[in-house]
Amino acid sequence: MFYLWLYSIYSQSVNRITQLFQIKYPIVQAGMLWTSGWRLASAASNSGCLGLIGAASMYPDVLRDHIQKCKKATDKPFGVNVPLLYPDLEEVMKIIVEEGVKIVFVSAGNPKAWTPYFKEHGITVVHVVGSVKFAQKAQDAGVDAIVAEGFEAGGHNSREETTTLCLIPMVKQVVNIPLIAAGGIASGRSMLAAMTLGADGVQIGTRFVASEEASVHPNFKKRVTELQEGDTMLVLKKLVPVRVIKNAFYKKVQEAEDRGASTAELQEILGRARAKLGMFEGDMEEGELEIGQIAAAVREIKQVKDIVHEIISEFHTAKKEAGSFDIPE
Amino acid sequence: MFYLWLYSIYSQSVNRITQLFQIKYPIVQAGMLWTSGWRLASAASNSGCLGLIGAASMYPDVLRDHIQKCKKATDKPFGVNVPLLYPDLEEVMKIIVEEGVKIVFVSAGNPKAWTPYFKEHGITVVHVVGSVKFAQKAQDAGVDAIVAEGFEAGGHNSREETTTLCLIPMVKQVVNIPLIAAGGIASGRSMLAAMTLGADGVQIGTRFVASEEASVHPNFKKRVTELQEGDTMLVLKKLVPVRVIKNAFYKKVQEAEDRGASTAELQEILGRARAKLGMFEGDMEEGELEIGQIAAAVREIKQVKDIVHEIISEFHTAKKEAGSFDIPE
Repeated sequence: MFYLWLYSIYSQSVNRITQLFQIKYPIVQAGMLWTSGWRLASAASNSGCLGLIGAASMYPDVLRDHIQKCKKATDKPFGVNVPLLYPDLEEVMKIIVEEGVKIVFVSAGNPKAWTPYFKEHGITVVHVVGSVKFAQKAQDAGVDAIVAEGFEAGGHNSREETTTLCLIPMVKQVVNIPLIAAGGIASGRSMLAAMTLGADGVQIGTRFVASEEASVHPNFKKRVTELQEGDTMLVLKKLVPVRVIKNAFYKKVQEAEDRGASTAELQEILGRARAKLGMFEGDMEEGELEIGQIAAAVREIKQVKDIVHEIISEFHTAKKEAGSFDIPE
Repeated sequence: MFYLWLYSIYSQSVNRITQLFQIKYPIVQAGMLWTSGWRLASAASNSGCLGLIGAASMYPDVLRDHIQKCKKATDKPFGVNVPLLYPDLEEVMKIIVEEGVKIVFVSAGNPKAWTPYFKEHGITVVHVVGSVKFAQKAQDAGVDAIVAEGFEAGGHNSREETTTLCLIPMVKQVVNIPLIAAGGIASGRSMLAAMTLGADGVQIGTRFVASEEASVHPNFKKRVTELQEGDTMLVLKKLVPVRVIKNAFYKKVQEAEDRGASTAELQEILGRARAKLGMFEGDMEEGELEIGQIAAAVREIKQVKDIVHEIISEFHTAKKEAGSFDIPE
């Protein structure tokens, strides 16, 4: 009985995300293309979060280099984000194992495909999903945790368009593994709100794009801090829906969609390497600029450690306030 | 000093929404066309919320009848929701004053237009907005409170597509009058989440559609409780964006939009009285079925008092849980 009691105290107080990844705060820095190299990932890990290297925009040898540099820059846990659309997938997976990466976040693909491989190699595996249906599939495939990402998130997004506020409680009802909320979260208040909805922790992307350590072009960081509400939109729904900043490229897409352009024409307008052109090379008009809706609330470029400190400090303020909400029973 | 101290205790503990409307819980039952007549509004008010009669689907004499019946059915405060697109606006405003309605919620229009009229007649006035810009305008026009409604809400919606999670903290930054969050809120957890984000209270629509007291057709109530994620979508963006259930009418609109149909053609497909056809007369295929995204989490038709009881009970459970989130400082 005494041990049961002790265990019940323990299981109440331990956060499942900090426990799973052995980190201080239940915050994951999202793996983002052209943004999260070893500098951002190691800074996030050194600040008590889980840092993720975004493999999507890296050739295999570049990824290996970033993993090695990240290991030198932090002795804290970090991971790699891999979208299953990646062309040299087998090589990337080999590198992940060879370099001893312990945590992998997988997005955009069938969770059955690689989960057994990761588990065989003792790697913690997390799937990013945008719907209850895929959350269920990921749990069934044996992943260790789920990131459920809402409509307001930057970049590629789910066709259901379910917002984080609606998505998290619905996913929570069907999965029992640890749940990480993503999309629209950039502050301590939204972190607490997400956890109130049933998430064990949060994944933050946009806010870390506006960090000194992010590897995107300075033009892009500056633009992110200047965005107003309505300045991002989910487009290219006939291809794969993606949330981008409204610029000249967006207007071309929008105009084509308004007149009912075919997928072939949209593909041609999109062309190749548009995200690189914008986010890495700094072309703010012709580039595809992927960012979340919450960018409209991000006003400054800061160091990662200061961003994390602000989020945690606001979380505690909000938690105290919530404790004093005076609603009759 | 003693009085200052007393006042600081008092101002901390009093909720600005329950205080403003003199109600028990900071919950507003949304005024919804074909849904919220005197039965729903009085049931909500009798359960401790602020009930609202939705004038949008009522001829002036019908509205007068509903107001009179609501006064007989409850001695608690209730209000009327008026969209400024209403054709017989002057007559409706006259009825509101003549019948001694004390609270008016105004949606879809310039807050400067009628706020002075309401204030002259001692009526508390609240504006429904979907963006920071209009929240600011409404405050400047002298309204008493604001409803900020996110992308996930049912029915007509803002062009910015800002979700509730992103919208509330941004509106909170620019307004100091009481703030009510709407869109995606149907439970005690989401109520607490919205208040954590900075709202003083919440407006709930979809959950009350699935109530015994709602005046919509039984077919519509049943359909609402069967919806899955992705079963509502924001469409008709070339006219006025509206969130509806995917049915035969929706598919016609979607197909037309996909091939770049003109606003004139879309207007013709929409036709007239489609919302009445669906929501009031029960045609689930040809009607325009307005409902929020969170319908996918609503599984039962219940009495209003039981819905309110569940929300408040879950709010307190969630508040206790939030108090024990163990995150280091």
